[in-house]
Amino acid sequence: MAKAPVLTPRTDDFPRWYQDLVAKAELADNGPVRGTMVIRPYGYGLWERMQAEMDARIKATGTQNAYFPVLIPQSSLAREADHVEGFAPELAVVTHGGGKPLEEPAVVRPTSEMIVNEYFAKWVQSYRDLPLLINQWANVVRWELRPRLFLRTTEFLWQEGHTAHATYEEARAFAARIHRDVYEDFMVNVLAMDVLPGRKTAKERFAGAVNTLTLEGMMGDGKALQMATSHELGQNFAKAFDTRYLSPEGRQELVWQTSWGSTTRMIGALVMMHGDDDGLRVPPRLAQTQVVVIAVKGDEQVLAKVRETGDRLAAAGLRVHVDDRTDTPFGRRAVDWELKGVPARVEVGPRDLAAGTAMLARRIPGGKEPVALDTLPARLPALLEEDQALLLAQSRERRASRTADVATADEAVEAVTAGGWARLPWAALGPEGEARLAEHAVTVRCLVAGDGSVPDAEDAPGNVAVVARAY
Amino acid sequence: MAKAPVLTPRTDDFPRWYQDLVAKAELADNGPVRGTMVIRPYGYGLWERMQAEMDARIKATGTQNAYFPVLIPQSSLAREADHVEGFAPELAVVTHGGGKPLEEPAVVRPTSEMIVNEYFAKWVQSYRDLPLLINQWANVVRWELRPRLFLRTTEFLWQEGHTAHATYEEARAFAARIHRDVYEDFMVNVLAMDVLPGRKTAKERFAGAVNTLTLEGMMGDGKALQMATSHELGQNFAKAFDTRYLSPEGRQELVWQTSWGSTTRMIGALVMMHGDDDGLRVPPRLAQTQVVVIAVKGDEQVLAKVRETGDRLAAAGLRVHVDDRTDTPFGRRAVDWELKGVPARVEVGPRDLAAGTAMLARRIPGGKEPVALDTLPARLPALLEEDQALLLAQSRERRASRTADVATADEAVEAVTAGGWARLPWAALGPEGEARLAEHAVTVRCLVAGDGSVPDAEDAPGNVAVVARAY
Repeated sequence: MAKAPVLTPRTDDFPRWYQDLVAKAELADNGPVRGTMVIRPYGYGLWERMQAEMDARIKATGTQNAYFPVLIPQSSLAREADHVEGFAPELAVVTHGGGKPLEEPAVVRPTSEMIVNEYFAKWVQSYRDLPLLINQWANVVRWELRPRLFLRTTEFLWQEGHTAHATYEEARAFAARIHRDVYEDFMVNVLAMDVLPGRKTAKERFAGAVNTLTLEGMMGDGKALQMATSHELGQNFAKAFDTRYLSPEGRQELVWQTSWGSTTRMIGALVMMHGDDDGLRVPPRLAQTQVVVIAVKGDEQVLAKVRETGDRLAAAGLRVHVDDRTDTPFGRRAVDWELKGVPARVEVGPRDLAAGTAMLARRIPGGKEPVALDTLPARLPALLEEDQALLLAQSRERRASRTADVATADEAVEAVTAGGWARLPWAALGPEGEARLAEHAVTVRCLVAGDGSVPDAEDAPGNVAVVARAY
Repeated sequence: MAKAPVLTPRTDDFPRWYQDLVAKAELADNGPVRGTMVIRPYGYGLWERMQAEMDARIKATGTQNAYFPVLIPQSSLAREADHVEGFAPELAVVTHGGGKPLEEPAVVRPTSEMIVNEYFAKWVQSYRDLPLLINQWANVVRWELRPRLFLRTTEFLWQEGHTAHATYEEARAFAARIHRDVYEDFMVNVLAMDVLPGRKTAKERFAGAVNTLTLEGMMGDGKALQMATSHELGQNFAKAFDTRYLSPEGRQELVWQTSWGSTTRMIGALVMMHGDDDGLRVPPRLAQTQVVVIAVKGDEQVLAKVRETGDRLAAAGLRVHVDDRTDTPFGRRAVDWELKGVPARVEVGPRDLAAGTAMLARRIPGGKEPVALDTLPARLPALLEEDQALLLAQSRERRASRTADVATADEAVEAVTAGGWARLPWAALGPEGEARLAEHAVTVRCLVAGDGSVPDAEDAPGNVAVVARAY
C-alpha cells in the first residue's frame, strides 16, 4: 500500500514542493508585512550553524566584526551614482520618529556601503591603518514585489564584508580570497554543494562595483541560484567619500575596496539542492542535530536506554537530540524527522532492549537496518562522513549531467528549457544572443575561462557564458 | 614628571571621562542618524563574547533561537493597550516602501511582543506544544531624545526572550530562572559585576507586564544602571492574541507568558563599572584578548620570540593577541592597550632575549614586574583568575561602602547626593516620599525583601526600597 505523500512531489510542482517543505519542516513562516519572514527555530538553527562556520573562515582572513546602524540618512545614499540608482527602487523609508516627522528621512539599510564608507573615510589616515577588514552580521531590507521565503524576502539576514586596501592588486586578491576560502570552501565542504565560481557580466554586476565574482548553484529543478558574491569596488566609493591614506612616501592616495555578502537565501538553496520528496536532507557537517535518538514507546527502560545512547553518542563528538516525546505517536515523529532531514535516526523500542540493538535510519542514502548499539559511537561518525560525500557527489552529478555545451542562443534556450544549464562561447553570444535568451527568461549567470577558472576580464579570449533560468 | 592624562579624570567630569574612553578605546562612534551608533571592532568583540556566554546559558534553559521581522504593521502594536501606550512615543515609522506610499505604515520593532505573539497564537495548539521557549538576537529602534553611546541609543542590539507556559507558577518560575541562571550568573561570574536583584515597582514595570525583575548595578559615580530585566506577562498578551492550548483534560486554556531582555547597554556598564582614569579594565573571562604579547622593537629575534610566546600562551588555553606593529612607537601602543583594558601585557624587548625574561604588566591590579618567559604559560591563567576576582570584589566593595540605610525620603536624597544609593522601608516611603525623591531626580530602582531576596509582592511586609539616581 503506497503511503500518501507528505509533500507535493517535486516532479508535480517544484515551487509548491518547496513551499510545502519550508512550512512542514518548520523552517519559516510568512511575516505580516508583505515579503517579510519569520525564521522558526529549526530554520534558524541551520542559520546559526552557517554563521559559525562562515564566521570562523571570515576571521581567519584577519577580518573583524563590527556593527553599523540600520538607519541611513537618505542623502548619504546619493553619494555614489550607480549605487543609488541600483537601490532606490527597493528602499523602505522612515519618515517619522519619536512621534514627529523627521527633518531628513532615513532609509532602512538595503546594504551598508554608504554608511560604512563614511566611517572608513574617518578611520583611514595612514598606510598603517590598511588593510581595513570589516564584516557585519545584520538584517537588511529591500522591498520585494514577488517574495518567496528565503529566496527573495523584503527583509533578510546576511553578512556583509567591507574592506579597504592600499593597492588595486591587494584589493583584487582579497575579493578572490573571500570568494574561494570563505564562500566556496564553506559551500563545498560544509553545505556539500556543488557551486560554479565565475565572473558576472557588466550587466549583472553589483551597483557600484567594477567586478563581481559569483558562485552559482544548480537547484533540483535545474534552475540557477546565486549563492554569494564578492565585489571589487575599485576606487568608486573611495572617490565618493574621499577616502585617502598617507603612503610611506608621504603621498595622499585613494584606497581600493571590496565588499562581499551571503544571506539566508543559502537556507533556500539547501532545500532546493538536497531536498527530496520526503523533505530536507541536511549535510551532517552543517546539521545542528546530526543524530536523533528516538524512544519508540514511553517504557521506562526504553527511555533510560535512549538517554544513555544519546549521552554515548554525544561523548563520541556527535551533535545529538534525544526524542522522548512519547505522548506523540512514533510514526508522526519519524515523519517529522524525515521532513527536517536529520541525517541519522536511532530508533529504540522495547524489543531492542534485550538484544542491545536499534534500528538505524539513514536519511541521506535512505534505508533502515538493525544495528548493535555498542558499535554505534565508533561507526556513526564514519557513516555521516559518507553521507556528506554522497550529497556533494549527487549535487556534482546533477550539474554535470544537466549542463549542455552549445553553439548558439537558440540551442541554449532549448537546453535550458529541458531543465538545465547551457555553456556557449561568450564572444559568439553578443547583444542579440542575450536578447534572444531574455525572451525565454534565460540569462547569463556568469562567465568562466576556457580552463574553468574565473576570468580576469569580461572580454578575455575563450570566455564561456553559462546561461540558465535563475531564482 | 607627571604624564598628561589620556582621559579626562573621572573626578573632574564623569560623563566626559565616559565619552573620552568610549572614543579613545575605539568602542563606538556616533551614527549619522541622531542617536544611532557605530560599534567598532573592539567594542563589538566585547559584544560577541557577551553573546557567546549568554547564548550558552539561554540554551541551557531549553530555549531556542529564532528570528522575527524587523517591520511590524502599525495596527498590530495596538492590540495590547498598556504596551502600545508605553512604546508609541518612541516609534520609527516606515511610510514608504519600494518607491510608493504603503497602504498601512509599518514600525521598526521597538521590542517584539506584538509580532511574536501573533505566531505563538498559531503555533500553540495543545499542552504538548508547551512550554514554548524562544529567544532572538536582534536590533531594535526606540527614538531617543537624549542619546548616549551604549546607554541610550536610538538603535541598540539585544536578545529578547519570549515564552509561553501552561500555568502561572511555571511562567513565574521561568522568569525567575532566567533572571538568576542567565542574567545574574553571567554578570557576576563573567562580567565580574556586583548586581542587585530586585523587583520593579508597578510604576517602573515594563509596559504590559504584571511583574518585572531587574538587576541594578552601581556605576563608578554612584549612579544606578538597570542591567537586564525579566518580565512576568501574566495573561495580558494571551488575552490580546487569544493564545490558547488544549489541556490534557480537553479544556481550552489561555497560556501564561514571560519576556526578558539584555542589551548592548551592558558594554556601557562595563566601562562605568570597571573603568579607571587610564581606560577600560576588561574582566579576563570576558576579554576577547586576555593577553597581548608586544614586541617593543622590530628586531628579528624579538619578533620571533614574541610569536613563539604568543603560540605557547595560546596553547595554554589563553586568548592571545600578538602586537608586532613595530612601525608604531611602543609607548603609543602600550597606552592603547591600557585604554582597551586588556588584562595582561607581556612586553618583550631586545635586552630580554638573553635573560629569557619579559615585563608583565597587569592592567587590573596595576603594576609591572619582570617575569621568566618559561613560567608564564603555567602562571598566567591563575593570575587572570585573581584579576577576575579582584574586579568583582572592588565592585562589591563600592556598593557596600556607598549604600546607606536611612529612614526618610529626605535622608535618602542626602545619601544619594553624596554619591551612592539609599535603602529605606518601602511602606514608609509612600507617594509623597516618592514625589520628594523625584524633585531630586532620585527614583526607586527596585524593591528587595528584608532578607535580601526578591519580594513575591510589591506590598509584602518588610520590603525595602533601594533608591538612586539612574542612567
